[in-house]
Amino acid sequence: MWLNVTSDLIKNLKKKGAHRVALQFPEGLKRQSATVAAVLKDAGFEVILSGDPCYGACDLALDTLTCADVLVHFGHAPVDDQPEVIFEPYPMDFDIGVLENTLPLLKGETVGLVTTVQHVHLIPAMERFLQSKGISCSVAEGGGRTPERGQVLGCSFTAAKATGAEEILFVGTGLFHPIGIALATRARVIALDPLTGTAQEVSGDALLRRRFTVMEKARGAKSVGIIVSTKSGQQRLDLAHRLASLSPVAVIVTMREVNPDELLNLGFACYVNTACPRLAYDDQVRFPVPVLSPQEFEILCGVRTWDTYTIDEIA
Amino acid sequence: MWLNVTSDLIKNLKKKGAHRVALQFPEGLKRQSATVAAVLKDAGFEVILSGDPCYGACDLALDTLTCADVLVHFGHAPVDDQPEVIFEPYPMDFDIGVLENTLPLLKGETVGLVTTVQHVHLIPAMERFLQSKGISCSVAEGGGRTPERGQVLGCSFTAAKATGAEEILFVGTGLFHPIGIALATRARVIALDPLTGTAQEVSGDALLRRRFTVMEKARGAKSVGIIVSTKSGQQRLDLAHRLASLSPVAVIVTMREVNPDELLNLGFACYVNTACPRLAYDDQVRFPVPVLSPQEFEILCGVRTWDTYTIDEIA
Repeated sequence: MWLNVTSDLIKNLKKKGAHRVALQFPEGLKRQSATVAAVLKDAGFEVILSGDPCYGACDLALDTLTCADVLVHFGHAPVDDQPEVIFEPYPMDFDIGVLENTLPLLKGETVGLVTTVQHVHLIPAMERFLQSKGISCSVAEGGGRTPERGQVLGCSFTAAKATGAEEILFVGTGLFHPIGIALATRARVIALDPLTGTAQEVSGDALLRRRFTVMEKARGAKSVGIIVSTKSGQQRLDLAHRLASLSPVAVIVTMREVNPDELLNLGFACYVNTACPRLAYDDQVRFPVPVLSPQEFEILCGVRTWDTYTIDEIA
Repeated sequence: MWLNVTSDLIKNLKKKGAHRVALQFPEGLKRQSATVAAVLKDAGFEVILSGDPCYGACDLALDTLTCADVLVHFGHAPVDDQPEVIFEPYPMDFDIGVLENTLPLLKGETVGLVTTVQHVHLIPAMERFLQSKGISCSVAEGGGRTPERGQVLGCSFTAAKATGAEEILFVGTGLFHPIGIALATRARVIALDPLTGTAQEVSGDALLRRRFTVMEKARGAKSVGIIVSTKSGQQRLDLAHRLASLSPVAVIVTMREVNPDELLNLGFACYVNTACPRLAYDDQVRFPVPVLSPQEFEILCGVRTWDTYTIDEIA
């Protein structure tokens, strides 16, 4: 895998005339850093590794560009335009036959098909498999933060919404993406974990109940920190200013990593998260006080109605 | 305390014509953030708080300046030239009478006197007290990273060395500073904790023994990460390049926060720390593998002798 990647990458770097190369790996691939760095050093490049935590293409180590000609970011497709960054995908194969497990759960003759970036190369094969079983797939072209056909992110379900399907099949690990798709599309959602083969129908109801509890705890908070990320693809300062204007006790707080210790140290009674949307939904259990989504804060401030509750996405 | 601070600060900000003001507090003062922010908001300023961890003026939230006219940094004196940053000291008083506890320990008639930034305003009173007991003080002018007279930092003992004294009195909490002074000056060092009144002679011997053990563990490491900080006042890229050139298995790694999880994820067998020097000396117990100082790595690489072992300072 890595030998192929680095061989193509070396050609690409030479074509660009890059000499000083910074490398960034997401957490799951970080252990490969030293190996890839050694291969590039042997090929004559000066190599710098980014050692900070990284969870997506929204979190580019652009600060390395002060001492490197180019940044190579592994494992994610770009979420925005970054001329000095090379994005190296890390495609992960699986046995297409596991799609068989979804057949008893699919009700219609057409299904919207979406997946995460490491499996998008298998979309055509998945379409062919389902077609052979009499199910036609609606796959939407990517765009914006999700450039690949059929790709969804935890902060962007555009490719799911654009299928227009009443039933959507998500192929990937974890339940956050399919729950987000369910809330964003109001479609019926089937999730298939391609590694374990587990297929299940997924609903957003349990998440909604948990969120309503968090909102009730935040009601009447005496101080509110509006979190703005300083990461390259998570900065929503205009949104934060608009939210801060809704409450006299709200203050904008910039953060790189949103972690429980810092939220505790700062001492606000509640926070509103405009950084990675998953932080509020997935990590509330780790946080010392309520961390609301922008839409939840709008509801508490009376500028949004309960029935227009929606999951937070980054446009 | 804070009312005075903010009253002067408001005048200063108005004089500068600043409207959008970013505030940064070190960890120990962060709980004051919301209060100070509210006072400034009431005075008509647009306020943004930096919520990232902060341990010194080497760690300025300069990224806030993309959305603020000025950054106000509380609690530290500047370590470098930063025209868009206002440094607000946080002086902490103590009862000068506790110096009495050092008298039985002081052997000479002259003592070098140093302290940390929050107590530098008491240097003249300390000099008068010791003079009244027949001990004359040598206090060096600040400079470089320590602009205040008699000030030391965990990464700069210049004001201690410049006293030229054979006996040095450090007034402040913790033992890291006096141990560093002992190693940097080879003088006899007395440490006084001004809050508890505890006075003691401090030696660098135990630290040295621990460091030699860490060095032995690092010997022959198959891969070495040379850590470079991306914080404003901790970047030593030239040093890192020089250290990386000493070993074929060394790779430069940029990091914002040097924490055990990231060192483990990256998977190097040992690291060399060119960020805040204290990380190697103070935090080794938290790290999964040896983290060496630049000088320790030089000794292992054979380009420095054991008898020129010295504590790492940032020039």
